[in-house]
Amino acid sequence: MSVLASTSAAEILERCDRLATFSSLPDGLIQRVYLSKEHREVNDLVAEWMRQAGMRTWQDAAGNLCGRLEGREQGLPALLLGSHLDTVPSAGRYDGILGVLSAIAVVERIHASGRELPFALEVVAFADEEGTRFGRALLGSRALAGTWEDEWWALEDEHGVSLRQAYLDFGLDPERIADAARRPEELVGYLESHIEQGPYLEDENKALGVVSSIAGARRFLITIHGRAGHSGTPYERRRDALAGASDAILAIERIARSAQLIATVGHLEVWPDAVNVIPGRVEFSLDLRGEYDSERDRIWDVIQDMLSDICRQRRLRWESVQTHSAPAASCSPRLKGVISAGIKATGDHRPMSLFSKAGHDAMAVAEIAEIGMMFIRCEGGVSHHPDEHVTEDDVAKALDAFEAAVLAVVDDTPEPLAPVSPTPVG
Amino acid sequence: MSVLASTSAAEILERCDRLATFSSLPDGLIQRVYLSKEHREVNDLVAEWMRQAGMRTWQDAAGNLCGRLEGREQGLPALLLGSHLDTVPSAGRYDGILGVLSAIAVVERIHASGRELPFALEVVAFADEEGTRFGRALLGSRALAGTWEDEWWALEDEHGVSLRQAYLDFGLDPERIADAARRPEELVGYLESHIEQGPYLEDENKALGVVSSIAGARRFLITIHGRAGHSGTPYERRRDALAGASDAILAIERIARSAQLIATVGHLEVWPDAVNVIPGRVEFSLDLRGEYDSERDRIWDVIQDMLSDICRQRRLRWESVQTHSAPAASCSPRLKGVISAGIKATGDHRPMSLFSKAGHDAMAVAEIAEIGMMFIRCEGGVSHHPDEHVTEDDVAKALDAFEAAVLAVVDDTPEPLAPVSPTPVG
Repeated sequence: MSVLASTSAAEILERCDRLATFSSLPDGLIQRVYLSKEHREVNDLVAEWMRQAGMRTWQDAAGNLCGRLEGREQGLPALLLGSHLDTVPSAGRYDGILGVLSAIAVVERIHASGRELPFALEVVAFADEEGTRFGRALLGSRALAGTWEDEWWALEDEHGVSLRQAYLDFGLDPERIADAARRPEELVGYLESHIEQGPYLEDENKALGVVSSIAGARRFLITIHGRAGHSGTPYERRRDALAGASDAILAIERIARSAQLIATVGHLEVWPDAVNVIPGRVEFSLDLRGEYDSERDRIWDVIQDMLSDICRQRRLRWESVQTHSAPAASCSPRLKGVISAGIKATGDHRPMSLFSKAGHDAMAVAEIAEIGMMFIRCEGGVSHHPDEHVTEDDVAKALDAFEAAVLAVVDDTPEPLAPVSPTPVG
Repeated sequence: MSVLASTSAAEILERCDRLATFSSLPDGLIQRVYLSKEHREVNDLVAEWMRQAGMRTWQDAAGNLCGRLEGREQGLPALLLGSHLDTVPSAGRYDGILGVLSAIAVVERIHASGRELPFALEVVAFADEEGTRFGRALLGSRALAGTWEDEWWALEDEHGVSLRQAYLDFGLDPERIADAARRPEELVGYLESHIEQGPYLEDENKALGVVSSIAGARRFLITIHGRAGHSGTPYERRRDALAGASDAILAIERIARSAQLIATVGHLEVWPDAVNVIPGRVEFSLDLRGEYDSERDRIWDVIQDMLSDICRQRRLRWESVQTHSAPAASCSPRLKGVISAGIKATGDHRPMSLFSKAGHDAMAVAEIAEIGMMFIRCEGGVSHHPDEHVTEDDVAKALDAFEAAVLAVVDDTPEPLAPVSPTPVG
């Protein structure tokens, strides 16, 4: 482990607290969305921390913040370390953010040690993982992976601002989005550390874990159409879209539980939304995830049949749009081994392996590089909530393990790498 | 029936179309709320129509528009005719509005006939029956009935504007609200015509009906508290407020149906309302109505027990606030007879009697005067919806019947009335 002075676990937690103050919500609640004022502010501040850690920094064409520490010669392929700085509404302060700040601290340690690596190190602070503003997740990492889709430009936020317009307002050029894409030959691999967002490490009394794979989520926006009407309307004349949606939400829960999948209805909106009017239309989101894509897709078929049944019985009509689909992404055996070696270096000789029920930037990066992920225990498995909590001890262990993992990649890279051309942006 | 030229049924429907254009919603949708720009605009326009009908007009201290035609001498007690001009969101164009415009046309006919009545006629266009803006119904008629409650001043609209501030912004003086209150001795009675908002007249092939009583609604705002969390959280750790609310909405439907009451959940909101976050809090409205207050109150107890059961099972917590409560209001035998006589005058010799499942301004006015109500058939029972529809034939019959009803009050007033002092406001 590095013995030179570098950012401590306590300081990283302080930095998490500081980033939590860049929020568009009042009363201490955290919300930081893509291409917002707060996005710019945290990019500026985190870039400063990256430079203090010895990195050269730039913001890429998608608004991701990047920092690079050269290896033993200029222009070598890079081991990418990253996570995200954006949040859900009323977020916690560690989801994504802790991974970015830990990666910076690990680069700082290696830089301070004077050790020259056979590859460059880059930290990427992704600008939109959660999809809070435009309803589409992984925008930052999809840009980096070169899997951006042109139709996204027309996505609108809740104020009707298109993604294209938001790029322009932020000072980014939509025509240059391809510049954010990295080529596989520029990359040695991708490592991400992240809070678990689940209770399994805590249940096993473990600080850290090796991620085996990331479950792929599919997301849908489901609309149920009924007929608005006066609240005095007798039952036999009603076509109540909210009663139908309630039926559907409970059926989704039943179906997903029995199939050992996870389904979440997190967004729901009612029209016309008045005390004395029967709801004529309800829109809700469905986030469906499981360890196996095939089972998840089969269950979506079951849910669709159920929606048709409910709507037939209630004289309603439904439709759905898929808003997100990600295949399950496996961590590579090599980088699982590297993470495992890192955790062992902290004294846990039998690292726990778990699959991630949450999506992560690593899923997008998996298109162009091997991925490895490390989970950090979080209290009660609580995440996406102001009570999200990690301990300083666990963060200290995570720093040691992540540094050891990076160095394990060195041991695993016997052949000298050659500079890639052209040199990465920045 | 009057044979002199006065506003015809066709012209009344045109006026309904015209008022429908005063809306705060785009795309032809109708929404007109209390103390808004549109409220002022329709008051101005309808006042003009009142004056054309021979009335002196004023706006009372609550923003209700009033028009008065004196009887055979100045200052006599008045027979009040009225309904409301405000709407729900995405409203139809007849609910309330048709009653106001019909009343004006009937006063116009009587004025044109030169007949002097033994009482004054007043038309009141109530400014807030639906409660769309401040979530509290019957504000206009409660002011007129002198049953305004001081705590309402703190009610806020969705933008955080208090009712008190909205009064000031509209140019009304909250300190003078009591000036809107009418004294029982000023009033001969209250007659209202209104679309049925139910299918019963249509089912019986009747244009018009006599209202026996108005069911009293109780309204509650129910909040279910769970815990927000990441959408990857396993089921056994979830405290999903929306799943709990869905359970509750279906149970409310089951309980109310089996008790032959009507319950409506028209408003629902989710926090934090994000695709990938388990809902931590859900708020929804409950509108509960039935023919008998005692049964309705008993069912509310049953619903509360059910809420507690669901919340216990799902590790949630609930609370409720009553936002509205009205006792069932009976129409007086005398004014039921008057309405019945009016309908008979149109050739329907066996007028249908029905109770109103919807609330009406008449419920509030019942505190200070006898009330009578006439229902007008509406297509398919559809109301609170853009498809709300009445036929010109039915409106023509309604005008004749309502005029005949007013004249029947004359026949029913053998003793000469004396002027009341002080003369009504205006």
